[in-house]
Amino acid sequence: MAEAEARGRRARGGGGAARRAERSSVVVETAKYIERNIPNYEILSEEALEIIEHNAETILEEIGVNFVNNPAALDRWRDAGADVQGERVRLPRGLARELIKTAPSQYTQHARNPDRNVVIGGKSLVLAPVYGPPFVRDLDGGRRYATIEDFRKFVKLGQMSKWLHHSGGTVCEPTDVAVNKRHLDMLHAHMTLSDKPFMGSVTEPSRAQDSVEMCEILFGKEFVQENTVMTSLVNINSPMTFDDVMMGALEVYAANNQACIVSPFIVGGAMAPVSVMGTLTQVLAEVMAGIAYSQLVRKGAPVIFGAFVTSIDMNSGAPTFGTPEAAQITYGAGQLARRLNLPYRSAGSFCGSKLPDAQAAYETANTLNVGLQSGVNFMLHACGWLEGGLVSSFEKYVMDADQLGALHHMARGVAIDENAQAMDAIREVGPGGHYLGCAHTQANFKNAFWRSDLLDYKPFEAWSEEGGRDTQVLAAARVRKLLDTYQQPYLDPAISEALSDYVARKKASMPDSFT
Amino acid sequence: MAEAEARGRRARGGGGAARRAERSSVVVETAKYIERNIPNYEILSEEALEIIEHNAETILEEIGVNFVNNPAALDRWRDAGADVQGERVRLPRGLARELIKTAPSQYTQHARNPDRNVVIGGKSLVLAPVYGPPFVRDLDGGRRYATIEDFRKFVKLGQMSKWLHHSGGTVCEPTDVAVNKRHLDMLHAHMTLSDKPFMGSVTEPSRAQDSVEMCEILFGKEFVQENTVMTSLVNINSPMTFDDVMMGALEVYAANNQACIVSPFIVGGAMAPVSVMGTLTQVLAEVMAGIAYSQLVRKGAPVIFGAFVTSIDMNSGAPTFGTPEAAQITYGAGQLARRLNLPYRSAGSFCGSKLPDAQAAYETANTLNVGLQSGVNFMLHACGWLEGGLVSSFEKYVMDADQLGALHHMARGVAIDENAQAMDAIREVGPGGHYLGCAHTQANFKNAFWRSDLLDYKPFEAWSEEGGRDTQVLAAARVRKLLDTYQQPYLDPAISEALSDYVARKKASMPDSFT
Repeated sequence: MAEAEARGRRARGGGGAARRAERSSVVVETAKYIERNIPNYEILSEEALEIIEHNAETILEEIGVNFVNNPAALDRWRDAGADVQGERVRLPRGLARELIKTAPSQYTQHARNPDRNVVIGGKSLVLAPVYGPPFVRDLDGGRRYATIEDFRKFVKLGQMSKWLHHSGGTVCEPTDVAVNKRHLDMLHAHMTLSDKPFMGSVTEPSRAQDSVEMCEILFGKEFVQENTVMTSLVNINSPMTFDDVMMGALEVYAANNQACIVSPFIVGGAMAPVSVMGTLTQVLAEVMAGIAYSQLVRKGAPVIFGAFVTSIDMNSGAPTFGTPEAAQITYGAGQLARRLNLPYRSAGSFCGSKLPDAQAAYETANTLNVGLQSGVNFMLHACGWLEGGLVSSFEKYVMDADQLGALHHMARGVAIDENAQAMDAIREVGPGGHYLGCAHTQANFKNAFWRSDLLDYKPFEAWSEEGGRDTQVLAAARVRKLLDTYQQPYLDPAISEALSDYVARKKASMPDSFT
Repeated sequence: MAEAEARGRRARGGGGAARRAERSSVVVETAKYIERNIPNYEILSEEALEIIEHNAETILEEIGVNFVNNPAALDRWRDAGADVQGERVRLPRGLARELIKTAPSQYTQHARNPDRNVVIGGKSLVLAPVYGPPFVRDLDGGRRYATIEDFRKFVKLGQMSKWLHHSGGTVCEPTDVAVNKRHLDMLHAHMTLSDKPFMGSVTEPSRAQDSVEMCEILFGKEFVQENTVMTSLVNINSPMTFDDVMMGALEVYAANNQACIVSPFIVGGAMAPVSVMGTLTQVLAEVMAGIAYSQLVRKGAPVIFGAFVTSIDMNSGAPTFGTPEAAQITYGAGQLARRLNLPYRSAGSFCGSKLPDAQAAYETANTLNVGLQSGVNFMLHACGWLEGGLVSSFEKYVMDADQLGALHHMARGVAIDENAQAMDAIREVGPGGHYLGCAHTQANFKNAFWRSDLLDYKPFEAWSEEGGRDTQVLAAARVRKLLDTYQQPYLDPAISEALSDYVARKKASMPDSFT
């Protein structure tokens, strides 16, 4: 297991942060991001991949994509050689693929604690929590609108979660703060309550700019211009529509060398055709157009090939999660991303269930495993997602976060050295014996098998005497424990004050808006 | 979706069964066994596989295996060229591999309804329910010792479950029937309450013989000698021990051309080394010895390469399920089985949880998906397993059985024809539109996405008004519905009577024994 260790590098954010953290009493372990030592699952044949790539170019050339309310984008496209009619942009075959070549195949997102830096791309897998729900749920309080206090609790849980590498972004929508100001409180929470990397705001270009400026306070202005310190989520309005709000945010981030996930948001059957091949074709065309555009803004800007895909229940129109078709699309999109040499974002703790029950877990497990095997490099929503993304669940957050440990162990692959072969143990034990006490077991058991920090492994009688608790009840106890032992990572008081001042000043500069 | 269809073949078991079933009011759908159109996941390199195969031969040659209380087996081995010392049998390098060559790479297990016949091997995946638990659990009655009435209910659920291809064997232990007689009642239930294929008894060679004789009544004596009508579970006492009870059953079945799964039963760290490579090596050696022995009994007897593997929690000694190490072993064993050209059995609805809650579902989903991708041909325990195999759960049975539908859809693979490419739909809808009403969606939606028959897809408000039911509660309702609509498949009354007579006569011939 590759835990983050003090690597002797100077801590930013005031210096000495790492040293002070070491002196503290509670050790908050964070695993290093996953580096896969297992193969990807390749569900599509070469023939299928070539058909998709050919058809995606046909979409870009003959149908085109819309860039809405964005004259500057249309100018950029015209200059690059696209055919622009009104807001419709048609790309000559090969143009997008050519432009994409300047996007890096991987990049490092820096955290204020350099031990928490993550590499996104190649064989890496970085795990970040749920993003976007307006509601929260917990066992005691039920389902309710999310507040900034809930938000802060989730950031603390993320900081305390060993298998999470990233603090995420909108872990829930703090609906008690004005819409035009809540990004400030959210960023402030990520920056002060966690030392893991985080995401910037995308709900207005001006809020993306605020995110950059707050990062300049946290990391230093020069550092931000030279390094990527945010990875933010830019959704495409599928089918084939790029709106000015999201593209405006992307323009700010790309210009500042900050990373964006360019991600179609697709419920198959509604925003894309009701077939795996059709959906993959549209996804590829959309991502190619979006990422090509990012490179028109700034060559070399870090970007991620995103694919949020799920299917629809044609009886009710509800999105459904953890389905085999979504899995097939996720595997296929990974193959397409690798052929473009781009980092890949997909999968997550998706489920449609209203409760953190068996349905939630089936659907989530189906998707987490697909995420690992499809070569995902950045998994947003890796824990805490409930009710089709309407709810951030405290209990499900820690349940899923625990399961993420299994992905780490799976990704280690199979050691084949002499110790792993264990022939001495097999000789020692022989027919009819047992391995519990043998030398090989004693030497290897601690690191041999993944062990949950949450699930119940007790005999029936012991479990029964302790109240016969189900997973949700065990998870509620774990939430309390993690919050009770939470320890705020050290931050230079001058930086902390400067961040607070920035937030206060920005908030005072405009009236509240709740739309 | 490949539902079983009337294929115009003459129904056995009295003739006309299929015709009568068609006339009945409730249509009980059963999906055809899965034929994979997706790749297997190959976690081990060629180098790793060769090391394992080399080391397994070393085990057989230098350490050997024990055949306990079985002089006839020792004679067979001696005749075949093995080195026999006491009960220890050592096989010259290459002998087992040579003997295994006569085992078929796939076989058909016949059901009394020929539409339910299954092919085991190659790209097929046949799904059978949980096997062995002494307890049952349901929402109303809690956890209790299983009875023959519970057993019959499970057989009925299996008959009614669309995605189950096989009625299984000891779906729970009917503890209210004498140990020496319960196999008769169990077989009678499978034969009369279901028309799917089933398993024979292995708890005594004489009970295996009874199983064959009851099959001769059901299928006809000649038919049984010419065809495989049972697949039974023969466990190896790992490490490397073959006891006379299980081997005695195997001898009866092999002599009668009936199939056996030859399966190490391994909790890693206890019955095998605490490493993936070590466990795989031992599993391979054990299976090779067991299958080679089956071919000494009768060349060409159908057999399955089995691997029941899980890991241990080294803190408590409890077996743990759905773990990444068990997954790696399951993938690897699949590769080894394919290299021996043998059908493969592994995976199942494994979990350690006491309740059909989120833990149960995470662990089960982790394992079911691995089963599909590791190339399993026969999945025992595919539904209903709870509490480490101590409990057959009614609710979990239908929950898991529902998830098996997702495996069917996943296994279909990705269609790449023109209709699947959906370029007409993408042109028709264009940027900013939606696909819900387009011609391609209308033509394809019914079969496009897998849909659960159990899970909740309702909006929060509707779900809430209906009582806010979790998966377990929804499952309890489905159990009732399936049992209420259960319809017994037609069986020739003469055969039915002959089976009952056989059971009555056998029972009367011996006193009850509860040990």
